[in-house]
Amino acid sequence: MALIVQKYGGTSVADADRIRVVADHIARTRRSGNDVVVVVSAMGKTTDDLVRLADLVSSTQTPREMDMLLTAGERISMALLCMALADIGVPALSFTGSQAGIITDTDHQRAKIVEIKADRLTEAVRSKTVPVVAGFQGVSTAKNVTTLGRGGSDTTAVALASVLQADVCEIYTDVSGVFTADPRVVPSAKKIPAISFEEMLELASSGGRVLALRSVEFARNFNVPLHVRSSFTWEPGTWVGEEGVAMEQAVVSAVSHESHEVKITITKVPDHPGVAAAIFRAVADQGVNIDMIVQNTSVQGYTDISFTAPRSEMEAALSVTSKAAIGIGAESVSADQDIGRVSLVGAGMKTHPGVTAKVFETLAKLDINIEMISTSAIRISCVVREKDLERAVVALHEAFEL
Amino acid sequence: MALIVQKYGGTSVADADRIRVVADHIARTRRSGNDVVVVVSAMGKTTDDLVRLADLVSSTQTPREMDMLLTAGERISMALLCMALADIGVPALSFTGSQAGIITDTDHQRAKIVEIKADRLTEAVRSKTVPVVAGFQGVSTAKNVTTLGRGGSDTTAVALASVLQADVCEIYTDVSGVFTADPRVVPSAKKIPAISFEEMLELASSGGRVLALRSVEFARNFNVPLHVRSSFTWEPGTWVGEEGVAMEQAVVSAVSHESHEVKITITKVPDHPGVAAAIFRAVADQGVNIDMIVQNTSVQGYTDISFTAPRSEMEAALSVTSKAAIGIGAESVSADQDIGRVSLVGAGMKTHPGVTAKVFETLAKLDINIEMISTSAIRISCVVREKDLERAVVALHEAFEL
Repeated sequence: MALIVQKYGGTSVADADRIRVVADHIARTRRSGNDVVVVVSAMGKTTDDLVRLADLVSSTQTPREMDMLLTAGERISMALLCMALADIGVPALSFTGSQAGIITDTDHQRAKIVEIKADRLTEAVRSKTVPVVAGFQGVSTAKNVTTLGRGGSDTTAVALASVLQADVCEIYTDVSGVFTADPRVVPSAKKIPAISFEEMLELASSGGRVLALRSVEFARNFNVPLHVRSSFTWEPGTWVGEEGVAMEQAVVSAVSHESHEVKITITKVPDHPGVAAAIFRAVADQGVNIDMIVQNTSVQGYTDISFTAPRSEMEAALSVTSKAAIGIGAESVSADQDIGRVSLVGAGMKTHPGVTAKVFETLAKLDINIEMISTSAIRISCVVREKDLERAVVALHEAFEL
Repeated sequence: MALIVQKYGGTSVADADRIRVVADHIARTRRSGNDVVVVVSAMGKTTDDLVRLADLVSSTQTPREMDMLLTAGERISMALLCMALADIGVPALSFTGSQAGIITDTDHQRAKIVEIKADRLTEAVRSKTVPVVAGFQGVSTAKNVTTLGRGGSDTTAVALASVLQADVCEIYTDVSGVFTADPRVVPSAKKIPAISFEEMLELASSGGRVLALRSVEFARNFNVPLHVRSSFTWEPGTWVGEEGVAMEQAVVSAVSHESHEVKITITKVPDHPGVAAAIFRAVADQGVNIDMIVQNTSVQGYTDISFTAPRSEMEAALSVTSKAAIGIGAESVSADQDIGRVSLVGAGMKTHPGVTAKVFETLAKLDINIEMISTSAIRISCVVREKDLERAVVALHEAFEL
């Protein structure tokens, strides 16, 4: 008998019919002899609708009240799911983040879980009742309602799986697993049966949108096996776990891409110690998420520095960088939105030094210029012109026979 | 400096524009030197929409989960109102029933308040912040989310006004006060400037829908002055308070009517002690709300017993009465839906014995038959044919020069 945490995303509970289908699946999982703990997101576009409502009412969207507003979404979906379960004879109880004992810090809209007091959930499981927990939300140490930010429901599920020592955390979504590339770009892309936490982390941070980065980090840190699968097909999806014998050590597991970034370049930066620190401390203090950084070789005491950041943070990045540039005596700051990033991820890369060369050759053959490069032990990322991005993804997917 | 509790109903916060208008009114109340505590209902038809959604999902609407579902409504309206207040520079904080310390019993969907721990509200008021509290909801002694049932937001407001020792509890609704009759039936009906708790109680229980009966009882028991007014006109409405010198002792204050009732009649009931008790104990145990009871004079050891109940409870009433009738050896049970009830309410009635006679004369002149009569010290109610109801209301309103 296993304990399974099942997390259902917004598309999985988008309407009354889908909610009943999910209830059936939970019942079937129980009939197979498992205990189930459910984590649920808000229905379909509920969260977007609530944000739109807030836009209509006010331009002062205080974080505390936005959290109060948005948490109404899961409240609705979890209550409905419990009623659908009651309809087919499965005893269930809904729990808000607060009732589930999910204690967070006081950082509204992107709170971090500091503790989980899971007594009520454990008690429910013991009495053969399915706890249905609101994803994405918690209660702060100051007793205010908080949300965990983007991908928060995945994080709730993984955190609960860890605390409850679940055998697996199933993440149900609208795709049937993790693919070797985005199937919309590469129609021949294949589902990956199993992948390591490290590879999944690199994928999540380089454009793969199936799992939130934070939840994968959490799963790796607490060694919670994940199973990413679709609530539309119910077929086995992708297992994410520790690197091990069961997992094939593919040289390259997947190609991912990201086209929502901007490249900021600071030209003629006086090249002396502390200059880069001055720039990136200022950028970090502004809360801008930097991805890649490249610094040119110094010529006559000057250098150029480029970095990429999410396009949504462009204005903040430009404003803080321009200020910093003046402070250090650099010449100018420019932003380039027409870029894309393609990444190769694979645990086997560590022991196959030829991968980088093959990437460069593949792109060169297509006459695609590489503007920035960054690598980790199991990932290679290249920034190219945005118009070349999809060609690069297709070519690399083919070159590495994925 | 006064402390004012303001309760805004669903129509008062029906959309973004109305929410901003309410925020402005709260700001104005504060500028006049008052502290304000706000209680808010769900926006417009939100609650109805959620009930419809539950109907689509499941036929097993467990009370605990219905409460979880419905309480999403106030969560949305109160967060939006706080943001609208922030927009115009009024510091505000939303509080769920649980956060406001509204502790109830465990009777889901019609919970009763057992205690209010208002520390967080008091603290907010002290720091010149407007607490915006979710109406209609609380948290049970078993730590589950509960709702107070119909008219629950009024009850929340009155209870908070009592605990916080507010100077007045303003109930904002879509009518501008309590009228001498329903203006849709009697166009010449006038707004009543002031009325006693007792009269308001009689009005609320005889068809006046402006205030929930329960909230008036609460206000009377704890002597909380109410001011019923419209959030559309903002003009002074009707004050409800203790009977006093300031209040005119009108012989008759208002005519109310109720057309959603059914008359159940049990014929040929053996007339001996304990028979009525057997019937009405059974009916009460079924949770049916009985209004009027009339028992005919006994003829040859038999009598007929009639009572009225809400039409929505007709089936339950019929089924339990039929069973009881068999038990006591009565002949038959019948239901009549084509009835209506007209009531006259007035504190001055106590000292004016001629009122009852005048009611009967007025109806007799119109050839309207009175089928049942019930009276209290300050109310006379008559059951008539439903088709005669509006004529009776108009005639009585005129006869007593209201």
